[in-house]
Amino acid sequence: MPVSENAVAVIPLGGLGEVGKNMWLIETPDDIVVVDAGVMFPEEDLLGVDLVIPDISYLKENKDKVRAVLLTHGHEDHIGALPYLLKEVPVPVYGTRMTLGLVRARLQEHEINSVEMKEVRAGDRIRAGKLRIELIHVNHSIPGVVALAVDTSAGVIVFATDFKFDHTPIDGRPTDVQRLGQLGARGVLALFSDSTNAEKPGYTPSERIVGEGFSDIFRNAKGRIVVATFASNVHRIQQVFDAAAAVRRKVCVVGRSMVNVVRIASELGYLKFPESMLIDVAEVDDYPPDRVVVLSTGSQGEPMAALSRMAASEHRQIRIVPGDTVIISAHPIPGNERLVGRTVNQLYKLGAQVVHGEAQGVHVSGHAAQEELKWMLNLCRPKYFIPIHGEYRMLWQHAQLAMSVGVPEENVFLLDIGDVLEFRADGTAAVTGRVPSGQVFVDGLGVGDVGNVVLRDRRQLSQDGILIAVVTIDKRTGAVVAGPDIVSRGFVYIRESEELLEEARVRLQETLAEMSERQITQWNVLKNNMRDALSRFLYERTKRRPIILPIVMEV
Amino acid sequence: MPVSENAVAVIPLGGLGEVGKNMWLIETPDDIVVVDAGVMFPEEDLLGVDLVIPDISYLKENKDKVRAVLLTHGHEDHIGALPYLLKEVPVPVYGTRMTLGLVRARLQEHEINSVEMKEVRAGDRIRAGKLRIELIHVNHSIPGVVALAVDTSAGVIVFATDFKFDHTPIDGRPTDVQRLGQLGARGVLALFSDSTNAEKPGYTPSERIVGEGFSDIFRNAKGRIVVATFASNVHRIQQVFDAAAAVRRKVCVVGRSMVNVVRIASELGYLKFPESMLIDVAEVDDYPPDRVVVLSTGSQGEPMAALSRMAASEHRQIRIVPGDTVIISAHPIPGNERLVGRTVNQLYKLGAQVVHGEAQGVHVSGHAAQEELKWMLNLCRPKYFIPIHGEYRMLWQHAQLAMSVGVPEENVFLLDIGDVLEFRADGTAAVTGRVPSGQVFVDGLGVGDVGNVVLRDRRQLSQDGILIAVVTIDKRTGAVVAGPDIVSRGFVYIRESEELLEEARVRLQETLAEMSERQITQWNVLKNNMRDALSRFLYERTKRRPIILPIVMEV
Repeated sequence: MPVSENAVAVIPLGGLGEVGKNMWLIETPDDIVVVDAGVMFPEEDLLGVDLVIPDISYLKENKDKVRAVLLTHGHEDHIGALPYLLKEVPVPVYGTRMTLGLVRARLQEHEINSVEMKEVRAGDRIRAGKLRIELIHVNHSIPGVVALAVDTSAGVIVFATDFKFDHTPIDGRPTDVQRLGQLGARGVLALFSDSTNAEKPGYTPSERIVGEGFSDIFRNAKGRIVVATFASNVHRIQQVFDAAAAVRRKVCVVGRSMVNVVRIASELGYLKFPESMLIDVAEVDDYPPDRVVVLSTGSQGEPMAALSRMAASEHRQIRIVPGDTVIISAHPIPGNERLVGRTVNQLYKLGAQVVHGEAQGVHVSGHAAQEELKWMLNLCRPKYFIPIHGEYRMLWQHAQLAMSVGVPEENVFLLDIGDVLEFRADGTAAVTGRVPSGQVFVDGLGVGDVGNVVLRDRRQLSQDGILIAVVTIDKRTGAVVAGPDIVSRGFVYIRESEELLEEARVRLQETLAEMSERQITQWNVLKNNMRDALSRFLYERTKRRPIILPIVMEV
Repeated sequence: MPVSENAVAVIPLGGLGEVGKNMWLIETPDDIVVVDAGVMFPEEDLLGVDLVIPDISYLKENKDKVRAVLLTHGHEDHIGALPYLLKEVPVPVYGTRMTLGLVRARLQEHEINSVEMKEVRAGDRIRAGKLRIELIHVNHSIPGVVALAVDTSAGVIVFATDFKFDHTPIDGRPTDVQRLGQLGARGVLALFSDSTNAEKPGYTPSERIVGEGFSDIFRNAKGRIVVATFASNVHRIQQVFDAAAAVRRKVCVVGRSMVNVVRIASELGYLKFPESMLIDVAEVDDYPPDRVVVLSTGSQGEPMAALSRMAASEHRQIRIVPGDTVIISAHPIPGNERLVGRTVNQLYKLGAQVVHGEAQGVHVSGHAAQEELKWMLNLCRPKYFIPIHGEYRMLWQHAQLAMSVGVPEENVFLLDIGDVLEFRADGTAAVTGRVPSGQVFVDGLGVGDVGNVVLRDRRQLSQDGILIAVVTIDKRTGAVVAGPDIVSRGFVYIRESEELLEEARVRLQETLAEMSERQITQWNVLKNNMRDALSRFLYERTKRRPIILPIVMEV
């Protein structure tokens, strides 16, 4: 898809029509810059899949044009695919201190050592090929987040991938609304903007609200306090430390990612607390309950996370007891509601008080709601508007918001991943083509080796299991010399179904005898007949359809 | 668990600490009456399980004492296990006209014909054994719902399994608050009350609100209107017909359960509309879009339901086009959020306007919220209070509400299923024991034959698939005469992994050769060694752990 002369194209490879695996390309005739390289966590029907990453075959084909990867912030849905990208397309990586701190940890796990990492900060201007990109500070639910203003031959393109407007942020740095206004005054060609909360009316409250929520609870709690939140939400974590300090409680950090982030964020200066506040998990029981806060992972009810293990009474060091207060400082990601619900039920059963979610004042979103999205639109006043970062209904809603503040309908593009949106020097814009895009599944060490065939089998296996029928026959005569034997897994409880399986074996014997009589010895016919006979019999008897695998050995 | 003389016991067999499979037993020394017999829809980790029903082994053991099954209403979580119960314990079934109408359809599917069905109505008094039970009309999201007042030797026990207070119900019959007040004035020993919305502050709005929402939308819609809701919500359906009639639109009913319920409810007089309003699905395209309403199943995003098929452009007769308005008149049941979200996304993509949920005025809950639960408590003023019908956190919250209106903490029982709560003639109450209880899984024709072993296998199969290694050996010498062959399903994409599987085969050959050298011929040792060798090799190469199934044939 060659880009026209003097034009610039934007190509989303993820994050549109889906939540996660965010990746956008900015392409000119000479250069490609990659914005973000995120993963998506698989929906439950992607059985056994660990991660979903964007299809980067277009980048592999155009390797020589790729100048840099620019990361807007350190969330997994923006950096998680970086190791897979760098293995194929090794280019310099730009990001803020916080972002690169998290990236380093990720790259180490993948044993990638030779990456050129360029630390940048809000206000910086980067040159990548002929593109000049300015970084603009924005608020979100992790520190070190930037929006981008890309200066192209066609005009300025603003990317606001994840943001909110927080007028009283924890680090004292509100979104740089002045710079956005300045850019808007000079003229913004196109705005690409975060649609996560485009369905939510009103404004997202300030992160500071959560600190007030913590303080109230911390002041009144008589027993231990456990707070679970996203490890990457460093400002939230800061507020846990602040609230704990105010009531002279020590803080014990549990859960691998929480321990890592607290370490990284402290080292990088994003998190500030006296070292003496930290206690080890082994020491927790040495302190009176009202002197302790446990800061934990597991706010999404993830079965292996620390809070979930505490709730299931399976945590090695920490046992929840009556009098404990548990704060789940998060909102369940769609699909996790049941897991979070299970954790809450278990905690109540153990006698804990549970406080959770926005309604109870212990969580706010990191994304702009409808009125803020209008703010962003009116600060930038873009000629073209492209909603990004959301499922289709969110993009659609965001498009309505843009039209409501005056962007003409024909200047709003509802893109699909893979679409090439070209902006030309004459000020026009159009979708000019498509590049390969999609979902690549990571399962263990395999990248892309699990596809529809494997998933279809896993789905059938998961529903009705498998039944294997083995027989050894004489190569020359076709006579059965061993078997048939039947083995099954995930189909029926074998010990209580011996009769059924024995009947199935007899059926199979009959089928084999019949075929032998008719002198059928071709493998395929043999196998198909075995499969059909078993399948019919078993469905009739159980109304289940296990995978049936006939195996014929020849001697 | 013999009940003490002059005492009465209540034993929940489902619906506590879970949502669904509601069933309670009322037991005296002489009689058992079963209240409701519901199913639960399996959570996603119960792979391949179709339904979950209560463990009724206690009823089977005490068959001779069981006098009747009394159904409070016709929802699946209250009647769905009835066929399984009646096959084991054939007793008369009591229910209102609407309830029995739905029960008949269910029993026909199971080919159960010889059941004694006794139609009752609110206000009736039933005698079952020595128990006298009065039926009290309550509002919910289906017609023909009753609460029960059971007159026992120990006092009056009120069961309000599913209810709300609707002062302007569609059928003009509010919950019988006068009778409840009368019973309360005379003295209620114990109240068992619906906890579904115990976490929701305030009041649940009247069903009539939804009619107003429909009217607004119907008046303004220019194109076709599609309304999806629960088939059993007859009052909701009535309001669709009413709103359609007001704007002179015809109604086309699609989806098997919707067609069934509209037929049954019309026949029984619960649903009223002129026959001429109905049009066949084949006729839809003969009418101008603004003259048609499609009434459909699929409000939970169920993949095979009519609305989901329309959204996926897979419905045979109805295609969603720009200009259509789709109303999803429901709230996603926890766990269904993603499915509903997917449907909404697809509908937007096809150009439809989508209106859904409570926030947009097209749905209200069928369950009482916190303030209404206090009303129920204050009408009955029970000595003992037992929250039922909800997960533990809802029961817990409901218990707090009861204490807030003055029930002493020691008189509130947070029960588990299987608990025997005995009320004695002297006015005391206590948990005196437990009976068998739990979840029985229905998979196809099998009831209870899928348990933890099968589910564990299905889980492993679903994640990493299975690999089968077959070898035929000479019985006498132990020499390999055929194979080893390797077959896999759901593990890797075989066509692209031939090399890996061939390497695995070579490893296996080496292992077999080594064992042959060491003259190892015992099956178990052979199999274990084969499994270990493959498992180690495959994990090293793929980081996956398929089930490994070695099969040794002897000739």
